This record gives sequence, structure tokens and C-alpha cells, in this order.
Amino acid sequence: MRLTLTALLFLTTVSVLAQSDAQKVRISADIRAVMDKQASDWNRGDIPAFMEGYWKSDRLTFVSTRGVTKGWQPTLDNYKRGYPDKAAMGTLSFSDLEITVLSKDAALVLGSWSLQREKDKPGGKFSLIFRKFKEGWRIVHDHTS
Amino acid sequence: MRLTLTALLFLTTVSVLAQSDAQKVRISADIRAVMDKQASDWNRGDIPAFMEGYWKSDRLTFVSTRGVTKGWQPTLDNYKRGYPDKAAMGTLSFSDLEITVLSKDAALVLGSWSLQREKDKPGGKFSLIFRKFKEGWRIVHDHTS
Repeated sequence: MRLTLTALLFLTTVSVLAQSDAQKVRISADIRAVMDKQASDWNRGDIPAFMEGYWKSDRLTFVSTRGVTKGWQPTLDNYKRGYPDKAAMGTLSFSDLEITVLSKDAALVLGSWSLQREKDKPGGKFSLIFRKFKEGWRIVHDHTS
Repeated sequence: MRLTLTALLFLTTVSVLAQSDAQKVRISADIRAVMDKQASDWNRGDIPAFMEGYWKSDRLTFVSTRGVTKGWQPTLDNYKRGYPDKAAMGTLSFSDLEITVLSKDAALVLGSWSLQREKDKPGGKFSLIFRKFKEGWRIVHDHTS
């Protein structure tokens, strides 16, 4: 019995260690897919679809130079107010993505965003915290500057 | 045998669930202690001691309005350059801290910083990612705006 348990624990440990790199690659790919979908939703002019990448919760936090916004709905409202039409939305692209997997259900993404618009090209840096939910990976915290 | 393993798994699960709230409280207290020490080190004019709250690694990332800095030493150098004397350093305080425990060795801290100086009072928001190391909890990523 003691031997069986030890063997079980050993096999579990070996399996976790062997999985962990593959797991990180998979998590990074899943997160990139969410962000790719966000960019293409944005570039179609569909802010509500873009917002599906965010945690649909009152506890979502969004930090920008304008301060802290709490909750999914107020974040959506801010985006709609800030980007009232397709000209204001421009073409969004993400670059320099660095994904750090923190646990099997949490990750940090550092990256750059830029909007190509007719008259200007605003951009900056963001730090995102993603968490994994039943529905997939979602941004629970966004600090954009 | 099957019963014993089931019972063991059940007891482990119960124990993990029962611990988790207490664990979060302990993690939050440990992180607050690191930040309290940082503020008092800063307010003594000791930037290298303040920097002990950061991960001493080339992989530390610091995002500010000036861009991204990589590594502990360049971050220390930036602080020294930006705050050459005690008058420039002023009195640092942290407020509105919201600590979200992401796993047993990772946490997000959202908060406000302000410097009381003779002539002005700069301040802003930060998002910190702390990770737990042998030496304790350390900031591995700082996004300040």
C-alpha cells in the first residue's frame, strides 16, 4: 500500500513535469487566439464582439490614463464612447506580445497596441491578466498606457 | 485499496478548500509587508533597499509612460536617475490596494501611489505581479502610469 501510493505520487509528478512545457505552449496559443479574435472583431467595427475577450463580470478592472473602470458593462460603455465610429476605431494591431504563464489558469501578457487611423496613429503598452474560465481564457485585468 | 485512495483524495480536497481562504489572507499580509517595507525604505532615502521588493533578475519588467525597462539593475538605475536626492524622492505612500491571489505563488496588486514633495504631489496607478520565491514575495512585473 505504501509503495503503491509512492509510485502513484511519483508517476503524477513525472507527468506534471513532462506536461508543463507543452501546457505553456498550449496556453500561449489559446491566449493568442483570443487576442487575434479581438483584433479582427475590432477591425470589423464590432466592439461588443471585441469585448467578449474580457471577463463578463462586475469585477473586471480596466486601468487607463483616465483612471480605473470596474465592470464589463462600464468598460464596454467607455469603448463605445471613445470610439463612436469606424473612423475613430481605425485598424488595431497588437505586437511585441510576451506571455508569461503564472499557473494553469492565470497568465500575464505584456504587449503593444496601435491604431492606424486616417489622421493619426495612437498606441501604447498594455499589461493583461488572463484567467481561464469554462468558456475559455478571458482578460480579468487590463492596464493600458 | 480503492476506498483508501478515494478517502485520501477526499481528505486532501477538503483540506485544500479549507486552507484556501486562510492562505489568501496570509499571502495578502505577506505582500503588504513587502510593500510597507518598500515605502519605509523609500522614505528613508534608500533606493537600493526599496529595490529589494523587486525580483533580482534580468527578466524583471517595468512598464511606465517612458516605455519598457527590462532587468533589475536598469530599473534601479532609472530610479536613481529619476530621483537623485531626498527632495526629489519626497514621501511615498501606497493606497487603494486590491490584492488578487492568482495561485499559491502568484498575485496581482492594483493600487495608487503618491509622492508628497515640497512643490508638487505626483501620483498614479500601478498594477504589480508578485511571485513567491525562496526569499519571499517579489514584484516580477510593474506597470505604472
